[in-house]
Amino acid sequence: MASLVDVYDTTLRDGTQGEGVSLSVTDKLNIAKRLDRLGVAYIEGGWPGSNPKDMSFFEEVKQLNLTTSKIAAFGSTRRSGIDPKDDGNLARILESGAQAAAIFGKAWDFHVTEALKTTKEENLKMIEDSISYLKANGLEVIFDAEHFFDGFKANPDYAMAALYHAERGGADCLVLCDTNGGALPQDVQAVVSDVTKEMTAPVGIHCHNDGELAVANSIAAVEAGAKHVQGTVNGYGERCGNANLISVIPNLQLKLGFTCLSDERIAELTETAKSVHDIANQVPPSNQPFVGRSAFAHKGGMHVNAVQKHPETYEHMQPEAIGNERRVLVSELAGQSNLYMKAEELGIDIDPKSGAAKTIIEQLKELENAGYQYEAAEASFELLIRRGLGETDDFFALDHFKIITERNQHGDFVTEAVVKLQIDNQPVMTAAEGNGPVNALDNALRKALKGSYPLVNHMYLADYKVRVLDETEATASKVRVLIESSDGRRTWSTVGVSTNIIEASWHALVDSIRYYFMKEEATAADEETPLLTGQGVCNH
Amino acid sequence: MASLVDVYDTTLRDGTQGEGVSLSVTDKLNIAKRLDRLGVAYIEGGWPGSNPKDMSFFEEVKQLNLTTSKIAAFGSTRRSGIDPKDDGNLARILESGAQAAAIFGKAWDFHVTEALKTTKEENLKMIEDSISYLKANGLEVIFDAEHFFDGFKANPDYAMAALYHAERGGADCLVLCDTNGGALPQDVQAVVSDVTKEMTAPVGIHCHNDGELAVANSIAAVEAGAKHVQGTVNGYGERCGNANLISVIPNLQLKLGFTCLSDERIAELTETAKSVHDIANQVPPSNQPFVGRSAFAHKGGMHVNAVQKHPETYEHMQPEAIGNERRVLVSELAGQSNLYMKAEELGIDIDPKSGAAKTIIEQLKELENAGYQYEAAEASFELLIRRGLGETDDFFALDHFKIITERNQHGDFVTEAVVKLQIDNQPVMTAAEGNGPVNALDNALRKALKGSYPLVNHMYLADYKVRVLDETEATASKVRVLIESSDGRRTWSTVGVSTNIIEASWHALVDSIRYYFMKEEATAADEETPLLTGQGVCNH
Repeated sequence: MASLVDVYDTTLRDGTQGEGVSLSVTDKLNIAKRLDRLGVAYIEGGWPGSNPKDMSFFEEVKQLNLTTSKIAAFGSTRRSGIDPKDDGNLARILESGAQAAAIFGKAWDFHVTEALKTTKEENLKMIEDSISYLKANGLEVIFDAEHFFDGFKANPDYAMAALYHAERGGADCLVLCDTNGGALPQDVQAVVSDVTKEMTAPVGIHCHNDGELAVANSIAAVEAGAKHVQGTVNGYGERCGNANLISVIPNLQLKLGFTCLSDERIAELTETAKSVHDIANQVPPSNQPFVGRSAFAHKGGMHVNAVQKHPETYEHMQPEAIGNERRVLVSELAGQSNLYMKAEELGIDIDPKSGAAKTIIEQLKELENAGYQYEAAEASFELLIRRGLGETDDFFALDHFKIITERNQHGDFVTEAVVKLQIDNQPVMTAAEGNGPVNALDNALRKALKGSYPLVNHMYLADYKVRVLDETEATASKVRVLIESSDGRRTWSTVGVSTNIIEASWHALVDSIRYYFMKEEATAADEETPLLTGQGVCNH
Repeated sequence: MASLVDVYDTTLRDGTQGEGVSLSVTDKLNIAKRLDRLGVAYIEGGWPGSNPKDMSFFEEVKQLNLTTSKIAAFGSTRRSGIDPKDDGNLARILESGAQAAAIFGKAWDFHVTEALKTTKEENLKMIEDSISYLKANGLEVIFDAEHFFDGFKANPDYAMAALYHAERGGADCLVLCDTNGGALPQDVQAVVSDVTKEMTAPVGIHCHNDGELAVANSIAAVEAGAKHVQGTVNGYGERCGNANLISVIPNLQLKLGFTCLSDERIAELTETAKSVHDIANQVPPSNQPFVGRSAFAHKGGMHVNAVQKHPETYEHMQPEAIGNERRVLVSELAGQSNLYMKAEELGIDIDPKSGAAKTIIEQLKELENAGYQYEAAEASFELLIRRGLGETDDFFALDHFKIITERNQHGDFVTEAVVKLQIDNQPVMTAAEGNGPVNALDNALRKALKGSYPLVNHMYLADYKVRVLDETEATASKVRVLIESSDGRRTWSTVGVSTNIIEASWHALVDSIRYYFMKEEATAADEETPLLTGQGVCNH
């Protein structure tokens, strides 16, 4: 039977220490949902004693009714010289309502005297009684032995003493941390191997990537007997990041035969990695191992032929196993089969022999060359196909718009948008103010539409993301705008690309509205109620 | 004595297989100069038999008179059924004038029959006589045993036979390649250890990063006896990239005691990594191990205090050893000690007891609450401090601006900006067009300034980034704009935050210009030339 390894995700805590990574409470809840679906054993939600904002995550995550993952709260051992019950940091952990607590303590004596400014003996007591206090209050307790590898090198007896005291306090898992990220795999293997022989409680591992070795170190630890692996999605984290769980998991499960996730869910790794990049607004590295767009991409004819016949000739594993796919670069064939696959997914029937299929593919190529990307904008993709097949129309046409952004002498910013549309062959012109040019444009567009299409009031923009595509051109570079919309029941995403952020936003806005109208029209057709009101007719 | 390891760089050949990496002959020559200066043993310049463009690199690199590195040409063993002297590919290698040849041959019998479509015996002959032919023509020959690890697993005898034939042909080095990139460190260690025992010629290693283990695998191979390591600068390469030499080298040299480069040159690793990113037009990942901007960055007050006193408490090595530097992040987590440390870094003296220090800290907190982030905008930070200390002024004042973005009936986008400034108490008003509102504003601002400050023409915007801070508010949310500017010699970054993207961009633009003027004014003061021309006076 395969050996089980508990995956402990700290994207929401250690991951947010990464430079440029910043997550709102909503972002954290969305990531927690994804991680629960993926099936990690633990989700570390934050440090309630250090960051009051984290408390609202712990409150709200209860409403999500997660089914697989336990929620863990992070914190430190109690302060020196006091009773655990008087320690505010430990109190916050209990208040958080988390099922598990991960508390870190010093395992390197140098840190005890230099950073913590207490005695070695007191530090050991702090470890033991903080743990037993949390245990007595019903929590599962994970002990993070900070700087364990450096500490073990400097003073192995003291480092081990920290673990003995944690075990005596009742810790459910002893996690050896390479806090500075400089350990080497063979050292990790040797130390973990020694520690697992000594301790009764299960041992865990927590690595950082300062030597570009965090994945290797995590694997070495598991091979040496660790049963619990900490890391973050996509390796976010302080300095050079934490161990990247998206790489650790397939190495352990698909290459070494350990069980981290169910066979079904490991196929969602690519999707998970991408959606976390999206939520954290990070550019997904195309060369990211396992899940990147280039991870199974093949250039060059001979290579491609070989791979098509025998994938194992140039692939280290099956991309499907982790939900990624083989990509053949610059190949007509790849594009077409993707299109049919995708259309089938959306319930659209395309006749491969029709002219429409050819036209859609050409249009798609042109748009992708221009920087469009439909992976995160399926509504724009569906609209493109259905328009190409003549299954939907535009609902309204733009005559023109104008946006004026002004900063007056008093330093106040005012933005106004004027929009003129053609709806059902009638001109409709209106103006609206907004908080910035895109918001003003959005407001004016809705105002112009709501007379004829009151249902525009039922949809709203839920998310707005901007990415600069070619950063070398600075303010004249191309931008991609992604908009997520919702009507409260479902959400959909659309995309626009241009050198002009307003134009890119316009395309994404208009796609979003047209997509909603198209979907509602299909429903309305079933119920025989016209979509276009106001004029009372639906003749588009 | 430290054991020597030959570093074999293939950035110019395997590195250019990376998606999005494309190098002109000039780019390649510039990279070759950097690598020679760094002191790698070999620079693989290209595949003259496959890519005729590569030939001009081999021609021109001779003019550079490199002092340290040997130039190597890549190619395959001869085609089956012919004499080496009749093989065009081998002829191109000889024509290239390279001192060394790296030729790859099949070590996995499956590839011999399936991809190469020849017999196993002929493949072994191809390896042996291709090598002896090149040797007879005076070249040093490196044999790249393709798919060695997969081949060794499938048929160890045949994989070893490939090496024996290479050795018999006179190969100077036998390089074991993990072509598919899926090997695990312990397998690499075991196989390399077996091979080095069997072979007389030195053994080398060539890894790919598909499992996020290329650095670990390279190190494992060297520890098992390999004397030659192949890889690319920054890990560029096909799919997930090649082994990143920028991480392999410091691990081997600074942690394990092998010698790859001179002690003097290893301190240029950061500079080399950066300049290769620049030449290849890749955004340097801020979390890149060893050399990234965040690699030695510290957040959080307690952390910072400890690092100031004892860097080893939170750093796995001395950043100076590889030419990187410690950075203190100015963030909400940081206390006053961060401010003083940062100011010291910038050469600014702040009296902790002065009212100015208190005011600056309060202002900083307010701005950070509003969403400002100075981690990636040190120029804005310096400006803030120096303004707070009364060391600089504003150079110009804004009266007002207006931006009009219009999409006309023909679908054309036009953007115009009107700006009115006060420079030296004189009003200056002008207008400009642009590619989008921010570009138009930038153009108008420069046009208004250039009469009085012609030096504005010497700076340009190098990068423009937008991040939506609170994405739940969609188009009405707050955005943070980061601008990187350059005058060709140095770059600096500034930040602006607002719910209005135009306002946020304005702040970042203005900070960028003011920072440049402030720096140039300091230089001008030394040289006693006025900064403000046009009116010919400098009375601000």
